[in-house]
Amino acid sequence: MHIELKDIAKVLKENDNFYILTHKSPDGDTLGSAFALCFALQKMNKNAKVLCSDVIPAKYSFLYENLKLQNFKPEYIISVDVAETQLLGDNLICYKDKVDLAIDHHLLNQKFAKLWYIDSKSAATAEIIYELIKNLKVSLDLNIANCIYTGISTDTGCFKNANTSAQSHRIAASMIDLGVDNFKIDKIMFDTKSKTKLNLEKIALDSLEFYYDDKCAIISLTNEEINKFNVCESDFDGFSAIPRQVEGVLIGIFIKEVVPGEFKVSVRTDESIDASKICAYFNGGGHRCAAGCTVYGTLFEVKNKLVNIIKRFVG
Amino acid sequence: MHIELKDIAKVLKENDNFYILTHKSPDGDTLGSAFALCFALQKMNKNAKVLCSDVIPAKYSFLYENLKLQNFKPEYIISVDVAETQLLGDNLICYKDKVDLAIDHHLLNQKFAKLWYIDSKSAATAEIIYELIKNLKVSLDLNIANCIYTGISTDTGCFKNANTSAQSHRIAASMIDLGVDNFKIDKIMFDTKSKTKLNLEKIALDSLEFYYDDKCAIISLTNEEINKFNVCESDFDGFSAIPRQVEGVLIGIFIKEVVPGEFKVSVRTDESIDASKICAYFNGGGHRCAAGCTVYGTLFEVKNKLVNIIKRFVG
Repeated sequence: MHIELKDIAKVLKENDNFYILTHKSPDGDTLGSAFALCFALQKMNKNAKVLCSDVIPAKYSFLYENLKLQNFKPEYIISVDVAETQLLGDNLICYKDKVDLAIDHHLLNQKFAKLWYIDSKSAATAEIIYELIKNLKVSLDLNIANCIYTGISTDTGCFKNANTSAQSHRIAASMIDLGVDNFKIDKIMFDTKSKTKLNLEKIALDSLEFYYDDKCAIISLTNEEINKFNVCESDFDGFSAIPRQVEGVLIGIFIKEVVPGEFKVSVRTDESIDASKICAYFNGGGHRCAAGCTVYGTLFEVKNKLVNIIKRFVG
Repeated sequence: MHIELKDIAKVLKENDNFYILTHKSPDGDTLGSAFALCFALQKMNKNAKVLCSDVIPAKYSFLYENLKLQNFKPEYIISVDVAETQLLGDNLICYKDKVDLAIDHHLLNQKFAKLWYIDSKSAATAEIIYELIKNLKVSLDLNIANCIYTGISTDTGCFKNANTSAQSHRIAASMIDLGVDNFKIDKIMFDTKSKTKLNLEKIALDSLEFYYDDKCAIISLTNEEINKFNVCESDFDGFSAIPRQVEGVLIGIFIKEVVPGEFKVSVRTDESIDASKICAYFNGGGHRCAAGCTVYGTLFEVKNKLVNIIKRFVG
């Protein structure tokens, strides 16, 4: 059932012992949202804890370094930025039927929770959490501000993606007023590349192919190419954006062979084309300009499947 | 002589027939600032015109497409975002002793004008122009908002550079409220690459070298490499940032051979090192984290000269 923000505040005040679930392969928004809410609940003298199925990448450690680690039996379970239960990941899937409240900004949230608040107009779930914390009458501090800023900044691609609104900027300004070192955070999130990443970029650029009068561009990395390096997930940050950035390209695709024969496909589109509709053909989903899916086969077959579907969108 | 913003407003009201001078190799801030001010002056029923020594790149044409083209004899000359007269360029250098008012955010503005307003705390000159227009009591419209937004967004590297302040975000929010299509503008400014640019990136990545325990990284493009393509100035946008982005690098340098034997050097640094001091050794200058200079010789010699100076900064 849908619930209003002010009613969420009431529910949270009435409950205690919160588990806050993030999505697997955690990003700045799911983590920023979860830790911001956790800090706020702890400030209300509640027990609260953030859970993630995967190891949290070290670059996000500043988000939770001041958080109290509390052990307790969960009584109320909240998911943040989790569009469907499958995204909880192997270690949290046990909670899939137990989520009391889902807070999310994904239009296609599967409404798996008992209560949900979904605002797809928010550029980041962190924007919703910001409003919620105001409703909770918890005073914002630097810990919370760092989390909110990181969520917004990462989910808007540092205020560059189509979802970036006046409100995104306005909240960012308030967080900087609270002492957030925005330059430092954005440098960690966007402006730091490992040497491995640079090497992978070179390989990916070499794979660039164009289709349909250059309206579609594809780059790829095979499992073999990836395994030449000691990679971590963040080495692939930003790769999805590369093909769409080429002048005139309406659909940019990054294909990554995660295990032999299984390809993770990221689709980025111009506003005129709905990326989530392309990915829906392969049981994937996402947002209008950024979506993803998994396709199986050889690289050649995967490209063929994609290119055949894309024909319908650049006709 | 320094003049306050409110007094600038008074001076502009008392005068007419304005020439507004930008710097050569114009960027989003000098153009955004100039056209915003021009729109505002025309709204005050003044004659006003923007002059630039170089051809304005096509991607900025949306800034002035609604501007009235007026012909008149100049009576009051303003420079915006011009740190020193040499930056006026060949076609505007004739005005070097005639600038009545300089509005700028460069700390090292040479104070060549009769009156100046320099605020190095502003991330962009466009932020100063925004305040000035408020002082002029001219109502902001979408034309002006597009210019102000573009100035701020481009000079902050889309809200990512060290200069990005709460005020930068706050003004951006107000401009979006006025109807600015921030996604479209940022896509043009940051997220669109020509194929030529991609090719040059590959070559530049191949040239990457590290010095001083990887604290300094250098990439380069020779005149010969550049001349293989049909390049335009914007094909090099963002190259300066590439070497500094590598993990652990404090000083990133991009060397571009503009004509045989003449190298344009861009230095980008971590906040702990002053890039403008490095460039001062070669009679260049700029900001703390972003500066430039010109060095002569062979590529080998130029690198040697730079690496020798840099030793003093990463000791």
